[in-house]
Amino acid sequence: MSAADYRDFYRGRRVLVTGALGFIGSNLSRALADLGAQVLAVDSLLPDYGGNLFNLAGYEDKVRINIADVRGHAMEYLVRGQDILFNLAGQVSHIDSMVDPFTDLEINCRSQLWILEAVRKSNPGVKIVYAGTRQVYGKPMRLPVDETHLLNPTDVNGINKISGEFYHLVYHSVYGIRACSLRLTNTYGPRQLIKHNRQGFIGWFIRQVRQAVRGEEIQLFGDGQQKRDFDYVDDVVDALLRAGAMEAADGEVFNLGGEAPVALIDLAKMLVEIAGRGGSYRLVPFPPERKKIDIGDFYADTTKIRAALGWRPQVPLRDGLARTIDYYREHAEHYL
Amino acid sequence: MSAADYRDFYRGRRVLVTGALGFIGSNLSRALADLGAQVLAVDSLLPDYGGNLFNLAGYEDKVRINIADVRGHAMEYLVRGQDILFNLAGQVSHIDSMVDPFTDLEINCRSQLWILEAVRKSNPGVKIVYAGTRQVYGKPMRLPVDETHLLNPTDVNGINKISGEFYHLVYHSVYGIRACSLRLTNTYGPRQLIKHNRQGFIGWFIRQVRQAVRGEEIQLFGDGQQKRDFDYVDDVVDALLRAGAMEAADGEVFNLGGEAPVALIDLAKMLVEIAGRGGSYRLVPFPPERKKIDIGDFYADTTKIRAALGWRPQVPLRDGLARTIDYYREHAEHYL
Repeated sequence: MSAADYRDFYRGRRVLVTGALGFIGSNLSRALADLGAQVLAVDSLLPDYGGNLFNLAGYEDKVRINIADVRGHAMEYLVRGQDILFNLAGQVSHIDSMVDPFTDLEINCRSQLWILEAVRKSNPGVKIVYAGTRQVYGKPMRLPVDETHLLNPTDVNGINKISGEFYHLVYHSVYGIRACSLRLTNTYGPRQLIKHNRQGFIGWFIRQVRQAVRGEEIQLFGDGQQKRDFDYVDDVVDALLRAGAMEAADGEVFNLGGEAPVALIDLAKMLVEIAGRGGSYRLVPFPPERKKIDIGDFYADTTKIRAALGWRPQVPLRDGLARTIDYYREHAEHYL
Repeated sequence: MSAADYRDFYRGRRVLVTGALGFIGSNLSRALADLGAQVLAVDSLLPDYGGNLFNLAGYEDKVRINIADVRGHAMEYLVRGQDILFNLAGQVSHIDSMVDPFTDLEINCRSQLWILEAVRKSNPGVKIVYAGTRQVYGKPMRLPVDETHLLNPTDVNGINKISGEFYHLVYHSVYGIRACSLRLTNTYGPRQLIKHNRQGFIGWFIRQVRQAVRGEEIQLFGDGQQKRDFDYVDDVVDALLRAGAMEAADGEVFNLGGEAPVALIDLAKMLVEIAGRGGSYRLVPFPPERKKIDIGDFYADTTKIRAALGWRPQVPLRDGLARTIDYYREHAEHYL
């Protein structure tokens, strides 16, 4: 399937997105609508998880928004007749998962059984793309990390995300449901929650840079030399679209990753420079509860998805950050 | 710690066993009582899971039996003041986990969070030994399978057992709770449920050999050449006792395994020979739902536990099977 084909694939298709009012879900839903898909955007709008009606602003007539919890029988109705299911619902806070492990289990693990059982009963022919995470690897034993690296999660969220992914793979091998998983790394861009710091540091950095006029600054834990990789959200959407359209993805797990690893201090410097207006960063000691679940350097080997789906990140970090800063400059009131 | 020491360690210790009326839990509880431990035997007696009051027959005055579900606040009381917690509660049926994945999630995954949260709140100094399973590896990519082998569960039960184990490891790394896991392989011996065939084939083979006079026979799927390893329950109890007493186990995962792999057809022949009385076996085609989750040959590399805890299986298969047959000959009415 050529580059043009996988985008054409979506014209007229019925596509269900869970977590569709969240960061990645909303960017994906907009892209799908632009490609001519009939999008059913499902979100629970649970407080603090990133769901935001403004994320689909301007698309209210192009996608059908359905507020529902994926845990429950509503999904048995909602999955009917769908061609593709992008399964992005979940909560992503490491810290929250340790404070309240039962809720994390509900949202990231039990919810996936509800969705997969609904699919098995009501629409076993649907193709499912699940949003996994690099968190399942924990602290790397070798770099870059490929898909055969041992799983060694450092928090309850990582464990429950593993379960969610494994459920999809078992429903593929046992029931033949065409499911796959993309293990996302640090995704950034427009429409990310930046109200609190529990959903990844990059949204928080952007908030701090924006709030420089109020005296906020980016705080980096430790020496800031930890290397990570970053994907602009449009590149993640592109990977999701490829996985949804291509048979080569079925039953497989793929890493996503950046073009090259970047030290957090260099990310901070770049953000400060792009944002202007007096932004700054500062090194602070690791808070103990963060240190315990910190994984040091992490960057992914993306050979598998490049070979199988033809994906590679296209948006340079500096460009992506500039677009992101611009977005929040324009729409700050909906995210702060 | 020498061989004598780890057994002496239990004299006067307060030891909580979950799943204590089940197969391994009851054999462990009896051994602990014999070593002079104060045993609190907790079991939910959920129907069909293997809990059986007869398993502690003769020990009613030596252990304290407390019927309770580990999911709930009872555990916060029960864990208080305990020195060691052997955490064996769970359900082990592959098939049941596919028919009713939500119940498997409750019993094998959510239950573990209840136990660990109870420990964290009420007794963070307790040492925990968790009963894991070789199922977490799925179909082996190489043999024998060591602890660095990829996790690739083939059913919902295997996924939920992974979560249960990972929760223990994360509570060790984040909260310093001294937890470890033994990944058990096929365990056999007295006090195993043999009433139905959903808890492993070896108990079922024993039942079929026993019932030969009623025309039952051992049915082997496929050609019977699948190799597996087997541990007599006393050897598993010995491994649990070592893990509970030795600091070298803290935060670690260990495979258990047999002295040498055995083809299922050879196991069946041995059982028929030992049992006498007209027992027989027969090759039958794989039922499709079994074939889908079958893993072919599996045997474990036990180098790690041999080196760290000095464990190795002691009971030859033939002796163990003979003792098992004898046990069910004497006590059949409590298990059929």
